[in-house]
Amino acid sequence: MNARRYRIDLSYDGTNYAGWQIQPNALTVQEVLEKNLLTLTKQPTKVHGSGRTDQGVHARRQTAHFDLQRDFPITAIRKGLNGLLPPDIRILRVRRVPGDFHARRSAVEKEYRYFIHCAEVLPPCLRLYRAHVRRALHVAAMQEAAHRLEGRHDFAAFTANPRRHVESTVRTVSECSVRKNGARIQIVARGEGFLYRMVRSLAGCLIRVGEGAVLPAEATRILKSGTRTAEVPTAPPQGLFLWNVKYDCGIVGTNADSDPSITAGK
Amino acid sequence: MNARRYRIDLSYDGTNYAGWQIQPNALTVQEVLEKNLLTLTKQPTKVHGSGRTDQGVHARRQTAHFDLQRDFPITAIRKGLNGLLPPDIRILRVRRVPGDFHARRSAVEKEYRYFIHCAEVLPPCLRLYRAHVRRALHVAAMQEAAHRLEGRHDFAAFTANPRRHVESTVRTVSECSVRKNGARIQIVARGEGFLYRMVRSLAGCLIRVGEGAVLPAEATRILKSGTRTAEVPTAPPQGLFLWNVKYDCGIVGTNADSDPSITAGK
Repeated sequence: MNARRYRIDLSYDGTNYAGWQIQPNALTVQEVLEKNLLTLTKQPTKVHGSGRTDQGVHARRQTAHFDLQRDFPITAIRKGLNGLLPPDIRILRVRRVPGDFHARRSAVEKEYRYFIHCAEVLPPCLRLYRAHVRRALHVAAMQEAAHRLEGRHDFAAFTANPRRHVESTVRTVSECSVRKNGARIQIVARGEGFLYRMVRSLAGCLIRVGEGAVLPAEATRILKSGTRTAEVPTAPPQGLFLWNVKYDCGIVGTNADSDPSITAGK
Repeated sequence: MNARRYRIDLSYDGTNYAGWQIQPNALTVQEVLEKNLLTLTKQPTKVHGSGRTDQGVHARRQTAHFDLQRDFPITAIRKGLNGLLPPDIRILRVRRVPGDFHARRSAVEKEYRYFIHCAEVLPPCLRLYRAHVRRALHVAAMQEAAHRLEGRHDFAAFTANPRRHVESTVRTVSECSVRKNGARIQIVARGEGFLYRMVRSLAGCLIRVGEGAVLPAEATRILKSGTRTAEVPTAPPQGLFLWNVKYDCGIVGTNADSDPSITAGK
């Protein structure tokens, strides 16, 4: 008997979780999903995410897949899970997908956004969703440095642990950009895949550039050095959102049984 | 010896507090402020707010005053308190004011905003800052009803407890308006003062109108009835923000020693 594969798109507030991936002695998003899927469907199943998110990192839209041995209506999964899950994890969409769909391996692009609140005071209701920088940042310098980080490079200098990536630390960053809107500075990072803590390292370096501690042109030298230094701190987790994971439409297939998309925009 | 009077503008996330006003066996914003002012200045002082906010209600900008027996630099108060207070309470601005300034009695206008997220799913990072309504609301009907609530009326039908207001339940609402931006519906209520739970009652009634359960024209009848019914539920606290409290500039006086304003905008 063939298992049915389901794709779920979900959103979560990472504040109260030790990240996505199941680990002993700490509550994770994956664990809470699997526990509630078992309650709902009475079928034990493993949930595979598009990738991990660290403790305190949020997801505007994460994608995962799982297999069920017996068919289960997609609307019942969405409504049932949202009835069981705590309000800091929400199912946005559920789809039946072909058996060769894989949340991690089929992903063609990931987008992360990193949010900084740049002002003396961090508004209380934003404190769990922004990095706080008290002094004004030089946004044009950050933009220039960000542009230098785009493209295909060895990002060994921008990961917290290059030995985790034994095969290669080369990645293609299709967009690294900086936008300012009032006190809010937003860093957008898009690419096929990122190294461990790479987006927070890019954000940490760009903040140093904005502070004037690192010149924009230095970004190229840091990349080429292949060695992490104090010029690349890891920016705090609460500013980071996994924004979206893209898949080729062809992979989902025309037979994908889907329900209407629900916007998770803030 | 004359006491020195200080005005503070502050912002708080009401999630973890039993409201503004000190009460036994529950943590309140006023209590946390007084405790930390004592730690900072070594002078016991009572903090007077512009008004109370209920449990779970937020303040983008609340105003309060207190007196100190010995002078204390305003910048040291702002920075000192922000260093001592938990991150869900932030001091935005501190000013020296004349002794006749009173946070509640000198206020000439208060503005509240009530936020509704209207979609099947409430995004996790908004769950503490929005009321959630699953089905589409009829915004034009809400706007018509809101307009009927503007002006000078007896709002006895829109308070949770009219007996708390023994003098009068007549109030002037200078603005009651409804705006929609994507899934977000914002109710703005401005006036000289509001009755107990009046803004949440206005919001509750407007939501019923948006759902089609109450016709817009009924708002006038409900006002005139002077009696609270099921047509006026109290909307949940987490959607409500005390947005701003206005004072006549003359009251603050030209001798007011002020520091630069810090925006609390989201």
